[in-house]
Amino acid sequence: MDFKQYITIVEDYPKEGIRFKDITTLMQDGQAYKKAIEELANFAREKNADVIVGPEARGFVVGCPIAFELEKGFVPVRKKGKLPREVISVDYGLEYGNDSLTIHKDAIQKGQRVVIADDLLATGGTIEATINMVEQLGGEVVGIAFLIELTYLDGRDKLQDYDVYTLTQY
Amino acid sequence: MDFKQYITIVEDYPKEGIRFKDITTLMQDGQAYKKAIEELANFAREKNADVIVGPEARGFVVGCPIAFELEKGFVPVRKKGKLPREVISVDYGLEYGNDSLTIHKDAIQKGQRVVIADDLLATGGTIEATINMVEQLGGEVVGIAFLIELTYLDGRDKLQDYDVYTLTQY
Repeated sequence: MDFKQYITIVEDYPKEGIRFKDITTLMQDGQAYKKAIEELANFAREKNADVIVGPEARGFVVGCPIAFELEKGFVPVRKKGKLPREVISVDYGLEYGNDSLTIHKDAIQKGQRVVIADDLLATGGTIEATINMVEQLGGEVVGIAFLIELTYLDGRDKLQDYDVYTLTQY
Repeated sequence: MDFKQYITIVEDYPKEGIRFKDITTLMQDGQAYKKAIEELANFAREKNADVIVGPEARGFVVGCPIAFELEKGFVPVRKKGKLPREVISVDYGLEYGNDSLTIHKDAIQKGQRVVIADDLLATGGTIEATINMVEQLGGEVVGIAFLIELTYLDGRDKLQDYDVYTLTQY
């Protein structure tokens, strides 16, 4: 399936010169969304994932149905102040700014095989922060799955030690 | 399955006197998460849903795997400024404040049968706003599915014209 035909390019969003990849048009097509998630779920299955981790909010759109398909748990990574119990947190650089991410301290068990899922590999900042937290909790990151990779931003350079799978590339 | 045993009550979050229902412990249990979503997906299937709509971010955790299971599209409702193309928006009252929600103008086709999904029915403010936008776009809200209902907040009173299904009640 050519997933690109379902992804909408939005010019100059969120700021001039950015060609934003809008996945909502892929998600709103039931067959395309199903196929995309199935491919990423196959990758996570081959990696023998025990749990899927995804950063809010678009990581939920990708990671939750993967977890559901594999009957594995899903662990959310959220912005500061959004998780109700004890967390660890990491500051990170976004493509468009800075922020801080958190994960519940008891969300990952030592030795668990973790696949991280998100919509887009850009500069890799969000994912680096997510890996950092998963590893602090004793999880083993066995794979990272994205719908989209922006190859010209070289996010993969930050993730050389990991098995990265992307469905479509720009 | 007794879903309550997987939901964690967090006292005094986000403010004193609130007993927050934390669903992350349900989500991180693969079997419980699978079962919960399957029950809500069965409801949406019976309603012949064409599309699932969910408000960010916890509505994604519930609505996305339902859409995946049924091979239907998922349409996100997001906070102002988060959707990249033309939107309609509605102001709404939250349990803990006020905000504005948006949906892409082309996300729903006239006459589509819509099931709205979210984690929690509290006062019903978020869902009222979501219904309002779906109906403005010509969609028919054929059902609303929640993991949790806080019956003492009487959110159902706002939703009397709709078929509301909740998995567990407090």
